[in-house]
Amino acid sequence: MFKRLCVIGAGLIGGSVACAARAQGLCEQIVAYGRVEDVANLQTAQQLGVVDAFYTDLPSALEAADLVVIAVPVGAVAAIFKQLQPYWSTDVVYTDVSSTKGSVLDAAAQVFGNVPSNFVPAHPIAGAERSGVTAASADLFKQRRLIITPTVDTDENALHKVQQFWQGLGSSVSLMSVEHHDTVLAATSHLPHILAFALVGLLGRKDEQREIFKYAAGGFKDFSRIASSDPTMWLDISLANTQEILPLIRQYRAELSQIEQMLEQHQTDALFQTFSYAQRARQRYLDQLEDLQ
Amino acid sequence: MFKRLCVIGAGLIGGSVACAARAQGLCEQIVAYGRVEDVANLQTAQQLGVVDAFYTDLPSALEAADLVVIAVPVGAVAAIFKQLQPYWSTDVVYTDVSSTKGSVLDAAAQVFGNVPSNFVPAHPIAGAERSGVTAASADLFKQRRLIITPTVDTDENALHKVQQFWQGLGSSVSLMSVEHHDTVLAATSHLPHILAFALVGLLGRKDEQREIFKYAAGGFKDFSRIASSDPTMWLDISLANTQEILPLIRQYRAELSQIEQMLEQHQTDALFQTFSYAQRARQRYLDQLEDLQ
Repeated sequence: MFKRLCVIGAGLIGGSVACAARAQGLCEQIVAYGRVEDVANLQTAQQLGVVDAFYTDLPSALEAADLVVIAVPVGAVAAIFKQLQPYWSTDVVYTDVSSTKGSVLDAAAQVFGNVPSNFVPAHPIAGAERSGVTAASADLFKQRRLIITPTVDTDENALHKVQQFWQGLGSSVSLMSVEHHDTVLAATSHLPHILAFALVGLLGRKDEQREIFKYAAGGFKDFSRIASSDPTMWLDISLANTQEILPLIRQYRAELSQIEQMLEQHQTDALFQTFSYAQRARQRYLDQLEDLQ
Repeated sequence: MFKRLCVIGAGLIGGSVACAARAQGLCEQIVAYGRVEDVANLQTAQQLGVVDAFYTDLPSALEAADLVVIAVPVGAVAAIFKQLQPYWSTDVVYTDVSSTKGSVLDAAAQVFGNVPSNFVPAHPIAGAERSGVTAASADLFKQRRLIITPTVDTDENALHKVQQFWQGLGSSVSLMSVEHHDTVLAATSHLPHILAFALVGLLGRKDEQREIFKYAAGGFKDFSRIASSDPTMWLDISLANTQEILPLIRQYRAELSQIEQMLEQHQTDALFQTFSYAQRARQRYLDQLEDLQ
């Protein structure tokens, strides 16, 4: 389908795109571009057979590439656009994997004047708390959602190719507006991560005073898992989508205030309704998850 | 070790105590007591071989029992003490499995004048979001912590027997004050459950307006798992430990306010410190978990 795929950044996501594209036979050749300081990871990528070659100079990496996947942290996307700009070709399809899409489109508009029609903004709803190419997997995107947020200018042909590419990797592709994407992801991903960091931070400081982690039950392990995520990545995401995250934090604090009041006033009915609504809502979520599989 | 174990309540925990005691050969005979409305579950317990017999009248259930394990929801413990009171025997060891210990000791003191010396308050740090005897497992307590919160009056011999019993079921037994127990569990278990109910409730209402659960990532599944817990059980626990939970909700809201402010003011250093402290704290928790296994 593509002659040469160039992944910019060979971390967990970029590496998994390469693995999956190879496994599904979607690209004849796969190369990676990275910074000089990432050479160890790039070498590993090549040794593992994830990529055929890697480059730390961009023109060589881009040579003959007909698909470029930008898979760097959200905070580094603007810099990559700047580097790509002199070599930008209308014959190539460009896409990304960033968790926030408004910030990526803003960055593209800043660098290029407006978002190039052959850049197709995409976001695979998949990941892990591990990072680097050693955590990459050809199955990471299977039975996962992938969201494309086209602009009014997005080229139909480029959009179609990116859509087919991700379907080929096993994902279920949805199209939505950039605003809707950033609102939804703030609620289902960014807010939960911030809540988990806040809880584990609070308990961590208590644990320094007096053992408490020692007595944490199994539920805590799952609940706190996302607090093991990369802090730099989540700093980037939080800053890139602040506008959507802030109102959610406020709504969540209001939700907690209500529960606090119910507890203070021993409002057993209201508490029961709150807990059982949440339990039913989670079942609704699980049912939808099953539909996907 | 014991001639006859009587479990009061044959749900997930009571059923698992029975299964594990049987598997480890800690009791010659195992019976269950339950309410008339629980007969279907009690019959299942007998059919599965979890218990040898079951009773809906208490004197028959208690006959010849030398160990009684109260395994009913926290909110029902006081009623069980009242029912047990006329038959209370100094030759029997009594214990419980409740998630809150202050409320249980209060209930015992109310019914008996003061906490009987042969009642040993205990809490296995284990569970699942499923319930009923069909979810019971002989392995539920293996490599899990069990906390005993003795009072000044607790009989040494009864304490020793309960300690040995739980070690026999595979648990690592710790002794601590009732106050410490309730503080620690409020932080590591009760607060996280309330946070999860609050989040899934908030998102559930959003999901009714516009699809969001559909696009939730894998991290959300784990983070929200405890929101599938039994609302009645968590109503009971929340009310029984309100005093410890309330200040934690307030501290957590303050923690969130701080993060909110960092985001508003783009305090990148402070945000990074917050996220990375939490990431390291979670690693400290994981390391301790490994020590147990």
